[in-house]
Amino acid sequence: MGMAGGGIGAFIGAVHRMAAALDGEIELVCGAFSSDPRKSKASGEALHLPSDRVYRNYEEMILAEKQLPEGERMDFISIVTPNHVHYGPAKMALENGFPVVCDKPLSFDMEEALELEKLVKETGLLFALTHNYTGYPMVKQARAMVKRGELGKIRKVVVEYPQGWLSTKLEDTDQKQASWRTDPKRSGIAGAMGDIGTHAENLAEYITGLQITELCADLTTFVDGRLLDDDGNILLHFNNGAKGILHASQISAGEENALNIRIYGEKGGLEWRQMEPNSLIIKWLDQPMQVLRTGGAGLQPEAQAHTRIPAGHPEGYLEAFGNIYRNFAFCLRAKLQGNEPDPLYQDFPTVADGVRGMQFIQKVVESSKSAQKWISF
Amino acid sequence: MGMAGGGIGAFIGAVHRMAAALDGEIELVCGAFSSDPRKSKASGEALHLPSDRVYRNYEEMILAEKQLPEGERMDFISIVTPNHVHYGPAKMALENGFPVVCDKPLSFDMEEALELEKLVKETGLLFALTHNYTGYPMVKQARAMVKRGELGKIRKVVVEYPQGWLSTKLEDTDQKQASWRTDPKRSGIAGAMGDIGTHAENLAEYITGLQITELCADLTTFVDGRLLDDDGNILLHFNNGAKGILHASQISAGEENALNIRIYGEKGGLEWRQMEPNSLIIKWLDQPMQVLRTGGAGLQPEAQAHTRIPAGHPEGYLEAFGNIYRNFAFCLRAKLQGNEPDPLYQDFPTVADGVRGMQFIQKVVESSKSAQKWISF
Amino acid sequence: MGMAGGGIGAFIGAVHRMAAALDGEIELVCGAFSSDPRKSKASGEALHLPSDRVYRNYEEMILAEKQLPEGERMDFISIVTPNHVHYGPAKMALENGFPVVCDKPLSFDMEEALELEKLVKETGLLFALTHNYTGYPMVKQARAMVKRGELGKIRKVVVEYPQGWLSTKLEDTDQKQASWRTDPKRSGIAGAMGDIGTHAENLAEYITGLQITELCADLTTFVDGRLLDDDGNILLHFNNGAKGILHASQISAGEENALNIRIYGEKGGLEWRQMEPNSLIIKWLDQPMQVLRTGGAGLQPEAQAHTRIPAGHPEGYLEAFGNIYRNFAFCLRAKLQGNEPDPLYQDFPTVADGVRGMQFIQKVVESSKSAQKWISF
Amino acid sequence: MGMAGGGIGAFIGAVHRMAAALDGEIELVCGAFSSDPRKSKASGEALHLPSDRVYRNYEEMILAEKQLPEGERMDFISIVTPNHVHYGPAKMALENGFPVVCDKPLSFDMEEALELEKLVKETGLLFALTHNYTGYPMVKQARAMVKRGELGKIRKVVVEYPQGWLSTKLEDTDQKQASWRTDPKRSGIAGAMGDIGTHAENLAEYITGLQITELCADLTTFVDGRLLDDDGNILLHFNNGAKGILHASQISAGEENALNIRIYGEKGGLEWRQMEPNSLIIKWLDQPMQVLRTGGAGLQPEAQAHTRIPAGHPEGYLEAFGNIYRNFAFCLRAKLQGNEPDPLYQDFPTVADGVRGMQFIQKVVESSKSAQKWISF
Repeated sequence: MGMAGGGIGAFIGAVHRMAAALDGEIELVCGAFSSDPRKSKASGEALHLPSDRVYRNYEEMILAEKQLPEGERMDFISIVTPNHVHYGPAKMALENGFPVVCDKPLSFDMEEALELEKLVKETGLLFALTHNYTGYPMVKQARAMVKRGELGKIRKVVVEYPQGWLSTKLEDTDQKQASWRTDPKRSGIAGAMGDIGTHAENLAEYITGLQITELCADLTTFVDGRLLDDDGNILLHFNNGAKGILHASQISAGEENALNIRIYGEKGGLEWRQMEPNSLIIKWLDQPMQVLRTGGAGLQPEAQAHTRIPAGHPEGYLEAFGNIYRNFAFCLRAKLQGNEPDPLYQDFPTVADGVRGMQFIQKVVESSKSAQKWISF
Repeated sequence: MGMAGGGIGAFIGAVHRMAAALDGEIELVCGAFSSDPRKSKASGEALHLPSDRVYRNYEEMILAEKQLPEGERMDFISIVTPNHVHYGPAKMALENGFPVVCDKPLSFDMEEALELEKLVKETGLLFALTHNYTGYPMVKQARAMVKRGELGKIRKVVVEYPQGWLSTKLEDTDQKQASWRTDPKRSGIAGAMGDIGTHAENLAEYITGLQITELCADLTTFVDGRLLDDDGNILLHFNNGAKGILHASQISAGEENALNIRIYGEKGGLEWRQMEPNSLIIKWLDQPMQVLRTGGAGLQPEAQAHTRIPAGHPEGYLEAFGNIYRNFAFCLRAKLQGNEPDPLYQDFPTVADGVRGMQFIQKVVESSKSAQKWISF
Repeated sequence: MGMAGGGIGAFIGAVHRMAAALDGEIELVCGAFSSDPRKSKASGEALHLPSDRVYRNYEEMILAEKQLPEGERMDFISIVTPNHVHYGPAKMALENGFPVVCDKPLSFDMEEALELEKLVKETGLLFALTHNYTGYPMVKQARAMVKRGELGKIRKVVVEYPQGWLSTKLEDTDQKQASWRTDPKRSGIAGAMGDIGTHAENLAEYITGLQITELCADLTTFVDGRLLDDDGNILLHFNNGAKGILHASQISAGEENALNIRIYGEKGGLEWRQMEPNSLIIKWLDQPMQVLRTGGAGLQPEAQAHTRIPAGHPEGYLEAFGNIYRNFAFCLRAKLQGNEPDPLYQDFPTVADGVRGMQFIQKVVESSKSAQKWISF
Repeated sequence: MGMAGGGIGAFIGAVHRMAAALDGEIELVCGAFSSDPRKSKASGEALHLPSDRVYRNYEEMILAEKQLPEGERMDFISIVTPNHVHYGPAKMALENGFPVVCDKPLSFDMEEALELEKLVKETGLLFALTHNYTGYPMVKQARAMVKRGELGKIRKVVVEYPQGWLSTKLEDTDQKQASWRTDPKRSGIAGAMGDIGTHAENLAEYITGLQITELCADLTTFVDGRLLDDDGNILLHFNNGAKGILHASQISAGEENALNIRIYGEKGGLEWRQMEPNSLIIKWLDQPMQVLRTGGAGLQPEAQAHTRIPAGHPEGYLEAFGNIYRNFAFCLRAKLQGNEPDPLYQDFPTVADGVRGMQFIQKVVESSKSAQKWISF
């Protein structure tokens, strides 16, 4: 794996590295960690990389690595730059034959997204988008139960992602994360909705297997002088007639990463909370509530295949993130070896999820400005 | 206290009786418990009432009690009939000089509500509406904290009331509760929204001290053949610029009475859950989360005054309900004695809350049918 | 019901009155509320009692009430005085034909306890001891499940009752509760163990249906100058070979009334927590955990019969306490009417539980002073 | 890092590898993964190791690696074999100049433990024992708060580790974990007490900074035919006068890994639960309860230094385990470079903890057999 972005001090780059390293299946072999070549070098050194594999920029990395013999060169690229620098390295990697793991959202705007989708189709290369929350075992279990019809036809979805860290104008300090995420030139047309609303949208569609068909959005910028939305409330219609609510916020004071989802069908309901991710609560019409547990009894193979340790030893965010990487690695290896990957591991978000996320952002922003109640999605 | 409705077997009548009895301040002295005189008699007997104080209907009760000497006759009437039979006894009681405690929603329709409001003003009699959830000590604490500005200016409100008991067509069985609540002739123009949505609306406005000014609603009837909404999702705008979400449902399979509220201000947030009502979670921007507890440390007088037992001995639904009755009784006694009641106890929902609730129902139904995004409230 | 003790301001007297009033089955008709006749009068007035039914002391009350015609005089006496004043009124009541409800522990010492047990047998009168925690519906459910063998043979019991309110020398302030509970002349030979340890012991034996046969205790007085134990840890052996732990404490800083119990059998385990009393967690060897809920699905008749309101409307301490009173009232009425009471309601702690509690106190204190490991119980 | 034991399929070997890999600071370079050379080879291959670094046994590995040039040879050995095979590789590694990371308990018996302690002192080599639960950030926070006196003088400790997985005679199936853990020839003189009781003991002493001085134990073997204890309850005395309870069990049906600890001081109490490890509950005498959160506000540097990701993204068992490895790696690197390691990272269990654990096992077994109440520790 080669990495674009993620120099020392960057939050998400370190996460990707830990997630990729966890299972001993992926080795970081090179990187272009910063747009500042000195920072890139320093980062490479801190990461114990040989200096000739630390590049000044992603262009150099892609070209140089391409020259290396197979087996030695990076097998794929991991892109962990801010949103406006996803497209460049992704496009160039694909054009040069490198599979891609890309942080979400897919791109800066819709046009880029569609272009990348086209390139993935043309090249036939693997492309993973790190909607990491779908990597949790209990999310897999939820999806498996819905798919098998255990809850009956789905009627209602409530998904939410409140955070509080942007309750004040943090971007005016030197907080790097806040700075680019609230900057339309780097983040795109949406703030909270792009950053975390897309996670909520992706999670809801992943678990239910449904698609949002209409939405009605109410975005707000609460912090004076901020340029993008920091809060949003959305009504949803799904393609099977289910109704839903999605809200995401970065001004929900005191909240950490409270991504939660509740799904109700004709026979039962389920509840999952990211901050206590190893429990999946199942509620039934006429039987006692059950609590399914990561690694515990009564789980489907989809959940079991994404669990590393026995029940009661909590798995967390990095393990879920690592499941995206591990599944990508398993599929990539199978492909390189000419095998069909195990269907249980053919399970990671792709460029199609990325395009859908960009559409979601576009429609939500459009709806929020509109006096029309429902906008088709 | 005399009671209209609430014969043996009725859910809410028994609740009112237990709530009223709890503190030894109110005695049930008479009743017209059913539209069926035999059932009324049987109920009175089971309740250990003398047979001459058990009436065939509320009209008889009001007229007969009026003839009794002061001190002996009922001091007020408690109305626990289905929605379409609130107006009749309430009007007649007021016109005959009896204060009223009335179950919610206030009436069958808006017209009745306004008429009752007018009568209350004209007669100067006390009128309580049992939006009982505002009786919980931790709800009082939440309101007190918001009022004192501890959370800063309020930005966001998320209030929800999911139930699952109407996930199937229960009204086709002989379940009495389901039967009248889903019947437009007895319940009014709304189902879930009237029954529990108004509780959510009342709770949000009570704690925040804000008023909803605009809303955008999406009501659904999921169960085939049902005549009223059994689910609704609503976007809210408040009069200070705050945004919100309200959802209520009776098809959220497996949910009991999960009335929950989260409120976020500039400085902090709070969370309260009716099913674990003795904890109030306070989240701060830069300090650890706190859990305030009924009867515990750090509470405002408003909370303390509505607590009966030491911290860690859970108070529940009946105690909260009893706080409505106790406050009503304290205020009534003070009035009868020509005293000013303690402001701490001048705290129960009134006919004005009832009118507001009826407006909410009307606007939500109107919005749900409209293609216009925002409806003024 | 007539009451001995429990003047205005006393904690447990008010609790007994609310618990007794809740269901409309019991009326407070007289009382001797304080050893100070003026306080007794004032309390009676505040409780809306006629002045001729407020007595100067329990002796006067028992004798005067005995003179009243049946139907008018109190049907039973409720004793809510400190421990050293249980025996006197209980004995006199029994000797004069009045059934008794008595607060726990039964008496000041073992001798008194045995004397009362003898009197109850001789008179054949009903006697209830308010080990109120056994009144919770989910405790009934736990007992019913163990009894039906659903957990298999019981192997291990962990019961605990930590409080923190005596972490400082509160008895040196004018806190009345602290004062008598830490005074050997009023409380008896044990402090925390008598006050709350007996609740834990009673709960464990009630749910499991087992009896403690041996114990090994380690009592401590942590607060300087205190005269009785404020903390205790005990190893237990049960009559079926099960092992256990009981710990109770009043110096567990910050704890409220965290009475918790976990019971493990060959097939499954259960967990109940008094501070969230409406959930009963059932853990299975090879199936997902279940959460049973007061009023919810899957409950035994024993639990259902002690529930007043639908699931999700929390019932609390007073409702559980009220179940003791209600069951006592139902049994008393049946007896007076010459009927056999419904077995579901023949379920309240009796003088035998009280004797067992006094033995427990005695054995624990003996064990704590002994160098011998196991003391027979 | 070279690894002794932990072939494919072994639980704890995989855990050690993931924990070591997580931070990119440690690379697995060689191993002797099984006593069966073929299994060792197959494991090495699956782990992508070059075949010449996969050895037939630990003796071969230590000798061969010693021949390799510095920088190429393993920097330390990780021992993840069953208890009876800790001593051999640890001793040989130390004698050949290799630092050691060893799984717990330290050894098969006390004699081996003391011998290893002596060797560590003589060689001056680093030795880490993976009492991994002390690696959790909130455990660090708890220890830091106690050390700074925030809870006042400690009075009471309740530590527990219930599991349920050995509720049946699992060792009679081909379950490898159950097999050696219940076998006195491989596990030593204790079952549950050695396997998980020592974790509880270590956690209690680590957080409080206190030492157990006396204990009174009651061990039981509940499953017929099992050769070692599967349950134990212990009373504790600490060197500052604090009292405590420790219980550990493998027959607590339905429990996963419920390692929990509560500690009470004169000013406040704390509670930590391994299965929800990112919350630390702090209870105060006269202020509301607080919930400290991994990565959240109000934490000491000791907690912050062991956190990888922002609050609300749960860290789990592997991250805590990884903290042991990372701290060991940081200290080892500093030592190799002649630097003083950052005191924040000089924080991992050592051979001294291991000796203490072995003494604990010995004393507990001795106490359980004794009729004497207190055994000095």
